[in-house]
Amino acid sequence: MKWEANGSMSTDTVGQPTGIENMANEGDSMSIAVMVGAGMMGSAMCTPLSDRGHEVRLVGTPLDREIISSVQASGYHPTLQRQLPQGVKAYQVDALADALVGADLVLGGVSSFGVQWFRETVLPHLAKRDLPVLLVTKGLAEQETGQLETGQLEPIPWALQAALPSSSGSTICAIGGPCIARELTERRQTTVAFCGDDLAVLGHLRDLLATPYYHISLSTDVRGVETAVAMKNAYAMGVSLAIGLIHRENGGDGPEAYNPQAALFGQSTREIQRLVQVMEGRPESAVFGIADLYVTVFGGRTRRLGILLGSGLSFAEASQELAGVTLESVAIATKMAAAVRRWDAENRVKMAEFPLLMHMDGIINAGQEVAIPWTSFITALD
Amino acid sequence: MKWEANGSMSTDTVGQPTGIENMANEGDSMSIAVMVGAGMMGSAMCTPLSDRGHEVRLVGTPLDREIISSVQASGYHPTLQRQLPQGVKAYQVDALADALVGADLVLGGVSSFGVQWFRETVLPHLAKRDLPVLLVTKGLAEQETGQLETGQLEPIPWALQAALPSSSGSTICAIGGPCIARELTERRQTTVAFCGDDLAVLGHLRDLLATPYYHISLSTDVRGVETAVAMKNAYAMGVSLAIGLIHRENGGDGPEAYNPQAALFGQSTREIQRLVQVMEGRPESAVFGIADLYVTVFGGRTRRLGILLGSGLSFAEASQELAGVTLESVAIATKMAAAVRRWDAENRVKMAEFPLLMHMDGIINAGQEVAIPWTSFITALD
Repeated sequence: MKWEANGSMSTDTVGQPTGIENMANEGDSMSIAVMVGAGMMGSAMCTPLSDRGHEVRLVGTPLDREIISSVQASGYHPTLQRQLPQGVKAYQVDALADALVGADLVLGGVSSFGVQWFRETVLPHLAKRDLPVLLVTKGLAEQETGQLETGQLEPIPWALQAALPSSSGSTICAIGGPCIARELTERRQTTVAFCGDDLAVLGHLRDLLATPYYHISLSTDVRGVETAVAMKNAYAMGVSLAIGLIHRENGGDGPEAYNPQAALFGQSTREIQRLVQVMEGRPESAVFGIADLYVTVFGGRTRRLGILLGSGLSFAEASQELAGVTLESVAIATKMAAAVRRWDAENRVKMAEFPLLMHMDGIINAGQEVAIPWTSFITALD
Repeated sequence: MKWEANGSMSTDTVGQPTGIENMANEGDSMSIAVMVGAGMMGSAMCTPLSDRGHEVRLVGTPLDREIISSVQASGYHPTLQRQLPQGVKAYQVDALADALVGADLVLGGVSSFGVQWFRETVLPHLAKRDLPVLLVTKGLAEQETGQLETGQLEPIPWALQAALPSSSGSTICAIGGPCIARELTERRQTTVAFCGDDLAVLGHLRDLLATPYYHISLSTDVRGVETAVAMKNAYAMGVSLAIGLIHRENGGDGPEAYNPQAALFGQSTREIQRLVQVMEGRPESAVFGIADLYVTVFGGRTRRLGILLGSGLSFAEASQELAGVTLESVAIATKMAAAVRRWDAENRVKMAEFPLLMHMDGIINAGQEVAIPWTSFITALD
C-alpha cells in the first residue's frame, strides 16, 4: 500500500521529512492485522495499520452492522465521518472466523462496555494460537484473577489474559495515552503508550505500528498506565464541570474562565497520581493519563456531560440529553469511588484524598448538585 | 469594606453560599497591605485583599506611571481593563516610603524582569522591619547565595531573602499556581500555593488572603514550587507550537488538533517533573506547575509566541510582532537550557531527558526552525 502523504502530514512534520521516506521503505514487513470492533477508535487505527502496509481486516461487533455495511459499500465510516484507507476489508461479525484466518496480529476496538462480548466471542478463537493482541479499550475491571493485592479492580489486559483458552499462547496488551480518533485518521502527530507484561511483545507491536505521526512508548507497568488512562475519563468530566458553571452564568456565549478549570485539572492530576500509587503502579505512568485528560477535556464526549452538569442539569437530566452516548467516565468514576470507599474502610487510603472523585460520585449516584469542594483541594507541605 | 458579591461569585460558588457570609464577618482582622508593582497580576491581587477588608495601597514601579495616574483619577486599571476595588489607594513610585508607613504586609507585584529593581528599591525599606513579604513573581535567578548544591539557579524568594538588609527580620514568600489576573478580579474560583521557608509565616499570609474564591495551599518546598511554576512559562510556549502548526495549515480558521498539543503537554509534564527533581524539589510540587501550564496555554501571553513560531515565523520575527510584551518564557527557557547543558557536562543529567526544552532553546537562541522532536518523546519502562 502506498504511503498517503497529505497536507497535514507534511505540515505537521515540518523539518522531519525523512521519516516519511523511511516508512515507505518498510512495506516489505507486511502482516495481516485484524481489528475487532469498528467504533471510532478501532476504525481510526486502520490508518497507521494501512500506512505500514499491513493487510487490514475490520470486523464489526453486533452493534457495528450499519458501519460495516457502509464501509463495505463505499469505504465511508459514518460515525468517524471519514473514508477509511483504501484496501481495508470490512467484515460483519458473522464472518469473524474467516477474518481471523492467517492473522498475525489481533486488535480489540471495543469500549470497556464491550469487554465481556470480546471475551466471550473473540478469545475462544485464540485457542492454540500465539498472537499479539492489542486493545484500544481503556478501563479497569472487577477483579477475577486474584493477581492484585490492591483491591478489587484490575487492568482489562490482565482480565482478558486470564480468560484466554489455556491452549492459547497469545499475549494481551493495551494502548493508553492521548489520541482522538479523527485526528489519527488525519495523521496528526500523536503519542501513545503500549502496555503489557512482556517488553519483547510490546516492541514487536511497536515495530508493526509506528509511523512518522504515531509515536509509541512502551511500558510493562500495566497497573499504572491502565489506572491513569482509565481515570482520565472520570476526571475529564470533573474539569468540564467548570466550563458548565460558566455557561450557566453567561449562557455559553461569554468567554470561558480558565482558573477554575486549571484548579480542577491540578486536583485531577493529584488524584490520578495517588490512584496510580494505590494501584501499585509506577509514578512515571501517571503522565499518560494527565496528557490524555488534556485531550479529553478539549476533544472528548465526556466534556459534554461535564458541561451539562455544570450548567445545572441533574445527572438524570444530563443522561437523558446524552442518550445513546456510552459514558465510560460514569462507569469508571462509580467503580473507583466504590473502591476508594472500601479502601478507606480498610484504612488503606483516606476518602478525603479524593474529594473530586467523591463529589463526582455524589453527582452521579446520589443526585447531588454540583458544588465543587474547592477548599478540600488545599494542601500543606512542610 | 463591604463584600462585593457579584453574579460570578454566586454562580461559581453554587452550593457553597455560607463561605461568603463567613468572610464578611472577618473584617475585624484588617491590616495594611502594600502591593509594589501595578502590573496585571499585582493589581488583580487588590481584589482578594480588599475583599478581606484590608487597607490596600498599590504602588507603581517606574514603568507603571500611567497606570497609577489612571487609578488615582478614576480607579480604572488600563491594562487589566477593570475598575480596581473601591478604597484601593494608588501611589507613584516616588511615594513608596509613604505607602510603606504602618504596613503589616508587603507584596511584590513585579515580573521576573523587575526583581533587580525590587531588590534595590524596595528591600532597603525593610531594614529593621519584621514583615511578611509575598511575591507574585515567578522565576529562578542566577545563584548568588550559595544555598544550592544543584547548580546556578535559585528560587527568587531565596535570592531576595539573601539581599535583605541584615537588620531586617522580614520573610520573603511567593505565590505559584494557576491564576489569570483578570479572572481573579472577577472572583473566579482560583487555587494557588504560597511557598516559603516558614510554615507559620505562610499560614499567617493565608489567614490574611484566603477568600471563598481564592484557595491557598502552603508549601515549604520553595525549590520545587518555584521550579515548577517558573518552567510552565517555557513549556506553555512549547505546547502552543502545536496550535501554530495547525494555523500554518488552515490559516487559523479550521479546527485545532489536540493530539499534538496533548503530546507536548505530556512531554512538558515529564520534563517539569524531572526538573523539580533535579532542583531537589519534592515531587508533589510539580502539580502546581502542571496546572499553571494548563492555564497559560489557554489564557496567557506566551500562547501567542508559541503560535507565531509554530505558524512559521522565526524567533526574531515573532519577537518583533510581540514588541513590548515581556516574555518570561523566553528568559526562563534560555536560562534553564543553559543550566541543563552545564549539568550534562557534569554528568548530573542528560540533555536527552529534555528534548522539548532544548528544542525551544534552539528556536530562541540558534535560529532553528520549529521541528518538534516527536520521536524523542518516546519512553520505555520495563
